[in-house]
Amino acid sequence: MLETVQALTKIVGSEYIHLTLEDRMCYSYDGTFRTFLPDYIVRPKNTLEIQEIVKVAAALKIPLYPRGAGTGLSGGSVPVKGGIVMDLTRLNSIIEIDAKNLVAIVEPGVITADLHKAVEALGLYYPPDPASLKSCTMGGNVAEGAGGPRAIKYGVTRDYVMGLEVVTAAGEIIRTGGRTVKNVAGYDLTRLFIGSEGTLGVVTQIIVRLIPKPEAKKTILSMFPKLDGAAETVPQIIARGIIPAALEIMDDLAINCVENHLHMGLPRDSEAILLIEVDGDQEVVEKQAPIIAQICQDNGASEVRVASNDAESDELWKARRAVSTAIVQLNPTKIAEDATVPRTQIPEMIRRLKKISAKYDLPMPIYGHAGDGNLHPNILANHRDPEEMERVEKAVEEIFKTTVELGGTLSGEHGIGLMKAPFMKLQFTPVEMHYFREVKRAFDPHNILNPGKIFGGEESEGLFTSPNGN
Amino acid sequence: MLETVQALTKIVGSEYIHLTLEDRMCYSYDGTFRTFLPDYIVRPKNTLEIQEIVKVAAALKIPLYPRGAGTGLSGGSVPVKGGIVMDLTRLNSIIEIDAKNLVAIVEPGVITADLHKAVEALGLYYPPDPASLKSCTMGGNVAEGAGGPRAIKYGVTRDYVMGLEVVTAAGEIIRTGGRTVKNVAGYDLTRLFIGSEGTLGVVTQIIVRLIPKPEAKKTILSMFPKLDGAAETVPQIIARGIIPAALEIMDDLAINCVENHLHMGLPRDSEAILLIEVDGDQEVVEKQAPIIAQICQDNGASEVRVASNDAESDELWKARRAVSTAIVQLNPTKIAEDATVPRTQIPEMIRRLKKISAKYDLPMPIYGHAGDGNLHPNILANHRDPEEMERVEKAVEEIFKTTVELGGTLSGEHGIGLMKAPFMKLQFTPVEMHYFREVKRAFDPHNILNPGKIFGGEESEGLFTSPNGN
Repeated sequence: MLETVQALTKIVGSEYIHLTLEDRMCYSYDGTFRTFLPDYIVRPKNTLEIQEIVKVAAALKIPLYPRGAGTGLSGGSVPVKGGIVMDLTRLNSIIEIDAKNLVAIVEPGVITADLHKAVEALGLYYPPDPASLKSCTMGGNVAEGAGGPRAIKYGVTRDYVMGLEVVTAAGEIIRTGGRTVKNVAGYDLTRLFIGSEGTLGVVTQIIVRLIPKPEAKKTILSMFPKLDGAAETVPQIIARGIIPAALEIMDDLAINCVENHLHMGLPRDSEAILLIEVDGDQEVVEKQAPIIAQICQDNGASEVRVASNDAESDELWKARRAVSTAIVQLNPTKIAEDATVPRTQIPEMIRRLKKISAKYDLPMPIYGHAGDGNLHPNILANHRDPEEMERVEKAVEEIFKTTVELGGTLSGEHGIGLMKAPFMKLQFTPVEMHYFREVKRAFDPHNILNPGKIFGGEESEGLFTSPNGN
Repeated sequence: MLETVQALTKIVGSEYIHLTLEDRMCYSYDGTFRTFLPDYIVRPKNTLEIQEIVKVAAALKIPLYPRGAGTGLSGGSVPVKGGIVMDLTRLNSIIEIDAKNLVAIVEPGVITADLHKAVEALGLYYPPDPASLKSCTMGGNVAEGAGGPRAIKYGVTRDYVMGLEVVTAAGEIIRTGGRTVKNVAGYDLTRLFIGSEGTLGVVTQIIVRLIPKPEAKKTILSMFPKLDGAAETVPQIIARGIIPAALEIMDDLAINCVENHLHMGLPRDSEAILLIEVDGDQEVVEKQAPIIAQICQDNGASEVRVASNDAESDELWKARRAVSTAIVQLNPTKIAEDATVPRTQIPEMIRRLKKISAKYDLPMPIYGHAGDGNLHPNILANHRDPEEMERVEKAVEEIFKTTVELGGTLSGEHGIGLMKAPFMKLQFTPVEMHYFREVKRAFDPHNILNPGKIFGGEESEGLFTSPNGN
């Protein structure tokens, strides 16, 4: 204990190691409801300090949890087995923006929105846009494989990261990928690290691909009395050769929560709202917006609002952006899932989710990214009520079973982390899990880095019902 | 030997096992000049037969080489240590095209152009377009991480494969990824297998993402008296927010070879030709083509031809498409490299390549994908002349050293295979190579699958100068 504190203090200096209960509590949680107290917090300033910290953790066999802003929704960064939380937010430099090569290099602590602003000022664009983009970090985005509304057209974090600098579990520095889009030298460790949730190495530098900023955009908000009308609209837009930059859906309960919260005149009896955005060249968005409005009307939309400028567009987005906050009025604990199905399965998925909500008597507003099949059913509960949390656990399991049955995946953009680890066996065979474990063993044979994630085990027993703490 | 033949015959039937010298010679080569005789050829018809073949190879510890059309340019499929070549071309079904979900599922033996045709008939598009697309297979594309001219705008094979069925080295069947673009459950084994050159498992089914087919295209051929004018044109187009669907370059030697071959009136004194294609909505290509033509003129183009219809566009592409054939007039053995640098380094790279060509007295026409920095310097030599091949080996090493020095990679789209394995140490540290080996060990601990590739070792000694055969 003293040995660890001395070794860590020597690396980061006494200003950047934190040991009080108050400080440790601040690092005990993420965007989920489970908390676990770490023993030590360190806040290194660069790759070399990270390397030294990892070496200490490796030598003393202490669990080490890399952490960005702690906004994760799967428990990916919580220190479930105690040990060292390594806060990477001091590594927050945008090292380079190379406009001619459409490349940026950032440190893991850079806030995603800060990268957006910096590149957009140069007429460039970094598309991945997780909902938490104003607070989440690029390192966290890489660790969890973050997505966002724009994924339907532009793809996810994985599609933009070209190279990484990583400190391995043994404290070595390696580089993967590079500054070229085409690169097939050696195994694709870059993508292997993306979405690996800090279990294979600590990402200390990120090379991302940029694209030119789209010239124009157009936003459409469309209210549907019937869910099926909204659901039919989605493939019909795509069949016209239009891939929107966002194609978001909210169900009736989500609509009513937002309307309670914002009083923006949303029709409370609509079964679904679609928020659709097209972007690109001015001529194209002017052509596509009326086509989309027409498709919405053909599918029984009761109202179609088309924004004619940025201010009106922001107004339309307000409803979608408020939903995550608005639904907490139903109950204090939000279990935000990100089950993803092929997009044509969305109406069936929503119908089944509503049955699960009724069966377990749990309010479950549904919203998300209809365009890419990535739904967010949000169970609202009170995590201090063990009986209710037992029902939550069963409902979550049934959501995942349904997802897999419909050809989908446990996680579209939040990662598996701690909270979904017990359900991995629903999606993967024992043989597939064996190869995940072999990969983990190849990079972190002593299980130092972010233990207790992805694979489950004893840490993920009773996650929903046992009291917080480790 | 007899035991192996009996076991394999029992699986595929006597019609699909080949043992004569003539047959074995047909499977001894790929698109490189090195040949190695296999001992057995088997041609399974489905995943279950593949699984049984892998089990035989694993039990008897016989090297096994999965093979598509054998068009590879890095020796990725040649049977360098003897053993079993497993020809996958009988698995050539397009299993499903799901237009509503923009997904296709194919077997590894499907010819890339056949998938193109099938999806384009439905108004859809599968962008990856390796030069060999009329003969190469999707399995080979996945194994080597194939690219093509469209990569600058649309990305490479890696960007379109969403899921795989794989037979492991132990003969198990696993599935990776799935039918959704967003998917972050477990480690990204899909991308790990892409570009792994058959060394980690045998891909038996491929799920790919499709996009809507672009409505229109426009092709521009532009002749530049000076290389720098062509080189400057590239970032200036991108700075205008235009990402062309192709941005190809040919140097003076390539131009002259094509002109000798086709007599299409190309100016023999031009230092470079750019072939540029834009695609997308009609309005957009009509707008972009004149902007690009103007940028070419501003950078000193002596002539700019703009195709006004598909026939004229095909005419302009003729020059680029003929180059690979046309240059063989210089010498019989073509060593086709695919060194890739950040796109702004292209003029410097071309200048240095020309110096290397002069230094080793080897003709080296250069062409390739200027838009993404992926150049193809092609050394023309005679592999039966050992003295010349010694110079080739030195020239190749110098090309790779230069590539890495300019921030690039040994391979943009051909893979490392056999021929580039000796040069991996120029790009990767011993620690990085160690983790590649750990990955290999995790999936194929007995080194059954495609041995002798990526990592080098004794098989890659004297690759250029020793006589063919094993």
